[in-house]
Amino acid sequence: MKVVPTRGISAPKGFTATGISCGIKAADKKDLALVFSEKPAIAAAAFTTNRVAAAPVRATKENFSPESQAIIINSGNANACTGPDGIANAWSMINLTAKKLGCKPSKVLLASTGIIGHALPIKKIRVGIKELKPEAGVVADQDFSEAIMTTDAFPKQLAVQIELNNGPIWIGGCAKGAGMIAPDLMPHATTIAVITTDAPVKKEDLDIHMKSTLNKSFNAITVDGDTSTNDSFFLLANGAAGDFEMSISEKHRFQEALDYVCLSLAKMIVRDGEGTTKVVEYKVVGAKTETDAISVAKTIANSILVKTAFFGEDPNWGRILAAAGRAGAVFDPDDIELDINGMAIIRLGVAVDYDLAALAQQMKAEEIQVWINLNQAGHQAITYGCDLGFDFVKLNSLYTT
Amino acid sequence: MKVVPTRGISAPKGFTATGISCGIKAADKKDLALVFSEKPAIAAAAFTTNRVAAAPVRATKENFSPESQAIIINSGNANACTGPDGIANAWSMINLTAKKLGCKPSKVLLASTGIIGHALPIKKIRVGIKELKPEAGVVADQDFSEAIMTTDAFPKQLAVQIELNNGPIWIGGCAKGAGMIAPDLMPHATTIAVITTDAPVKKEDLDIHMKSTLNKSFNAITVDGDTSTNDSFFLLANGAAGDFEMSISEKHRFQEALDYVCLSLAKMIVRDGEGTTKVVEYKVVGAKTETDAISVAKTIANSILVKTAFFGEDPNWGRILAAAGRAGAVFDPDDIELDINGMAIIRLGVAVDYDLAALAQQMKAEEIQVWINLNQAGHQAITYGCDLGFDFVKLNSLYTT
Repeated sequence: MKVVPTRGISAPKGFTATGISCGIKAADKKDLALVFSEKPAIAAAAFTTNRVAAAPVRATKENFSPESQAIIINSGNANACTGPDGIANAWSMINLTAKKLGCKPSKVLLASTGIIGHALPIKKIRVGIKELKPEAGVVADQDFSEAIMTTDAFPKQLAVQIELNNGPIWIGGCAKGAGMIAPDLMPHATTIAVITTDAPVKKEDLDIHMKSTLNKSFNAITVDGDTSTNDSFFLLANGAAGDFEMSISEKHRFQEALDYVCLSLAKMIVRDGEGTTKVVEYKVVGAKTETDAISVAKTIANSILVKTAFFGEDPNWGRILAAAGRAGAVFDPDDIELDINGMAIIRLGVAVDYDLAALAQQMKAEEIQVWINLNQAGHQAITYGCDLGFDFVKLNSLYTT
Repeated sequence: MKVVPTRGISAPKGFTATGISCGIKAADKKDLALVFSEKPAIAAAAFTTNRVAAAPVRATKENFSPESQAIIINSGNANACTGPDGIANAWSMINLTAKKLGCKPSKVLLASTGIIGHALPIKKIRVGIKELKPEAGVVADQDFSEAIMTTDAFPKQLAVQIELNNGPIWIGGCAKGAGMIAPDLMPHATTIAVITTDAPVKKEDLDIHMKSTLNKSFNAITVDGDTSTNDSFFLLANGAAGDFEMSISEKHRFQEALDYVCLSLAKMIVRDGEGTTKVVEYKVVGAKTETDAISVAKTIANSILVKTAFFGEDPNWGRILAAAGRAGAVFDPDDIELDINGMAIIRLGVAVDYDLAALAQQMKAEEIQVWINLNQAGHQAITYGCDLGFDFVKLNSLYTT
């Protein structure tokens, strides 16, 4: 697998992309992004489970067809909690994009991200959509990835290439962070992420590929525990790499490459989490059910006492066990085992005689692994979380309405 | 009802109390507390639902009898995640207290609070228990309330007196804060709280009084969303006020007075929440079920994006709606109504034309009311929460193991 960190959404054949400033954000920052497939692509999508779903989510779920050709995204305004006007504006964005590209509105997908509860500046967007000129290449990828950013410190994209028997196929991906991150979608997804591929994926396989990858990537991260109103995940496969059928082993390799792209993007989001100084991987094993494993991992990762302890580089593992205990999972505290960065800390529910100075040193790392064995059965889960420090408070107490 | 803020646990007749330093905490801070009823009292208790329940919780649940006479509490060490030695130490505390007081071990209740995962300094406690001299009075109340504190900035106690036909009865209460606060107990309770009364409550009524009051008080607060390993609530009624039967209307008045004591203590905990600058009341009405109402109120109160926005005095109500939307409750976002301190902000899911300057002014208050109408049916719930600011991070990143 060839990994190309400088490329993204327009790396796969037949896709073009762009990102411009249309004046939603201040200071001419890019805020309108488009990805376009020359030929209609098969599409899979996942949306937020939040009941207060934003207008673009509601419109796109209604409009969704498994044959899509374009995704239009604006940042700087979430078009959420905006009532009937918001819904009308979402449909306007779909219709204007379809008109611009000369395709049917049913082939256009839409997402928005930014401040909640403010009217979408549809006039600026209308002018902006007319100006869009999607192209393929490094600049187009970069422009697209910048145009979907909100509080992100850096754009998040990559592309990978794998060789199949009939030639190479590409997968390109782009996502945004960095706040209101706690994926919980149906079938599952998070934030706004777009994946393109020129692989000739079959319509009946695309959803399976998507569901499999989301559980291992976007659904396994949390920054602040707050599931967004606007989370959307789109996967487009246009088959431009060639008209051939992938073998079972090739499908597995495609899945692996897709997993790599999505997990890479998901981890970038955590690393760019608001005020994050550390990425913490919580691996829970030995759970009675997968639900138990996920619940324990997520509850610990979202505990603000655990998060602030990691910020303080304090090996306060009592808080990790306390969070595990309130997760609703079945286990006996006397069976629990805990390692931090490979150091044994707890065995049979009790602290072993570990080297406190060595542990304190481990806590200074930028990436920390927490491993918990519930010793019940064979189920496991991983959640990627981060710490919570002064900069998180600064960013989130001053992020103005 | 007469409210006496300077009295507490030994205000009801027949109860004595004390609090001393036995050397668990540094700097001679008080860390060992006892309340004693001259005659055996009927007792009701509630404990944490956290699976990682501390040794004192596990021992006390096993030891609990509805006729109790004493409660021994230490602070500075939670005796949690301490394995078989921890359990043995918990039983030692019960047995040593019984010996000291000349009563059966089955009449002694126990609670511990403090750091998790450290061996209990049982030798110091053994010496301390011998030195305990419980008395009635202002000093005894104060000593008791100080001796159960951990990160509390101030002790939390009060006593109330109500006149019944046969004379006055007292209810005294004491609780501790101020971190790992998010009650979820069976039948329900939070943190460590002790309530004494000399009212002649019947054995079969005491549990009903307790359950009724906990839902309205300790179970309706959250500081950090982290349910503790050590939460315990004890209610002792020794009947020392007189041998008479309370009428139904007197029972109602007793319940009201008990509710007043418990809600007052619960609110003190929130006000003393680590780093708290504001207390926020979230009242959710119009929910389809009570569970929905509680879930929405708690999810908003525990959202770190909402909490940091309140710290920044930023009326970022989009975060409130986003948190409501991920609570798992049934509602239509287009029906939702939101008021902040009585100002209408959202009607039919959309922001009304409110006065932003006036709202910004309201956000500066130390107590803020958030009212949310889901417009589904008639169920409601209240949660008392707080903000999250720099001092919370400071306290929790530096609270050392």
